[in-house]
Amino acid sequence: MELIDTPRSGNAWKVRLLCGYLDVAIRRHPMSIIDGDLNTAEFAQKSPLQQVPVLKTREGEWLAESAAILWYLAKGTSFLPEDALVQGRIVFWLIFEQTQHMVNFAQPRLQINLRKLREVNDPGMIAYRTAGHHALRIMERQLAQTSFLAGGGPTIADVALFPYTFMADEGGYELTSFPHINAWLSRMQALPGFAPIVSA
Amino acid sequence: MELIDTPRSGNAWKVRLLCGYLDVAIRRHPMSIIDGDLNTAEFAQKSPLQQVPVLKTREGEWLAESAAILWYLAKGTSFLPEDALVQGRIVFWLIFEQTQHMVNFAQPRLQINLRKLREVNDPGMIAYRTAGHHALRIMERQLAQTSFLAGGGPTIADVALFPYTFMADEGGYELTSFPHINAWLSRMQALPGFAPIVSA
Repeated sequence: MELIDTPRSGNAWKVRLLCGYLDVAIRRHPMSIIDGDLNTAEFAQKSPLQQVPVLKTREGEWLAESAAILWYLAKGTSFLPEDALVQGRIVFWLIFEQTQHMVNFAQPRLQINLRKLREVNDPGMIAYRTAGHHALRIMERQLAQTSFLAGGGPTIADVALFPYTFMADEGGYELTSFPHINAWLSRMQALPGFAPIVSA
Repeated sequence: MELIDTPRSGNAWKVRLLCGYLDVAIRRHPMSIIDGDLNTAEFAQKSPLQQVPVLKTREGEWLAESAAILWYLAKGTSFLPEDALVQGRIVFWLIFEQTQHMVNFAQPRLQINLRKLREVNDPGMIAYRTAGHHALRIMERQLAQTSFLAGGGPTIADVALFPYTFMADEGGYELTSFPHINAWLSRMQALPGFAPIVSA
């Protein structure tokens, strides 16, 4: 299988993280957003929203959206138990990550840290963090009850939410008031096969 | 099973639509957003984001997020084939619906039609429709190639995207330039068990 990604993308890290845990080999094709690699008609054929990551599956078909790729790769493994209710909970967290979480962490990280466009206390960045704190409180409440988000062992729900939560400080977040999230971040890093983000 | 919903919610219609197709009985508990039924600590225990729909599962646990409920109910049926790649495609469309589609249709419908807060050509409403048209073009491209969104027969990907696409005219959309979407809307209505939206 092949993965088109960009080195510092948190969405792409989710996929590499899961591949590490599952010990699945994958060939990376790093691209550059700044060089315009994603703005081509050829890339739109592979990824309708012209986003990374996108996976060339075993079947030869291109699959876009990090959550969809995690689902495909984890099917049949302990990271995606077959029980209907557990899968329902996992879908809840995958949707939560995309609608309540990701943008509130990715944008401050991008604008403050990666592109240096905004100061840490810019009002727009504070607004992102206010919304992000609401998401963190929902995660904290769950992780006070269960060691991993969907109950039981680690699943792709945890993999999906790990990267942007782990990198929150790059967007001006301070996680000290979320002890259960911090313990969960440590548990995720202690799992066999943990793969750090890549820089190239 | 029990479903807390609101009558005119497109997100709740997804669940009733699937229950109709699957011939699954479900007991409805309609609530009122305007009366503040969702703003209670008791409801937040059932639905962390204080949104409808929320399902009381066979196991007795409350499950929130329409996509998560669809997944739980469809597990083991033809609306959720077990093939990993098909499930990956379904997750793609469920995420697409929540991040690229739903808000761009639900908000104009709410603000123009249900609450009469905005005129059809209000600049904010036009902005929603511009983004919504981009989502429709991605659906149209897929439906030019396959009868249903995930390939093969109808799945929860189609169920998730049906309600707000079907009600697009209530937000000032005109779908005549999307022939494949129109044919798909007709196919969905022709499936056995099709359930219209409820008004109470």
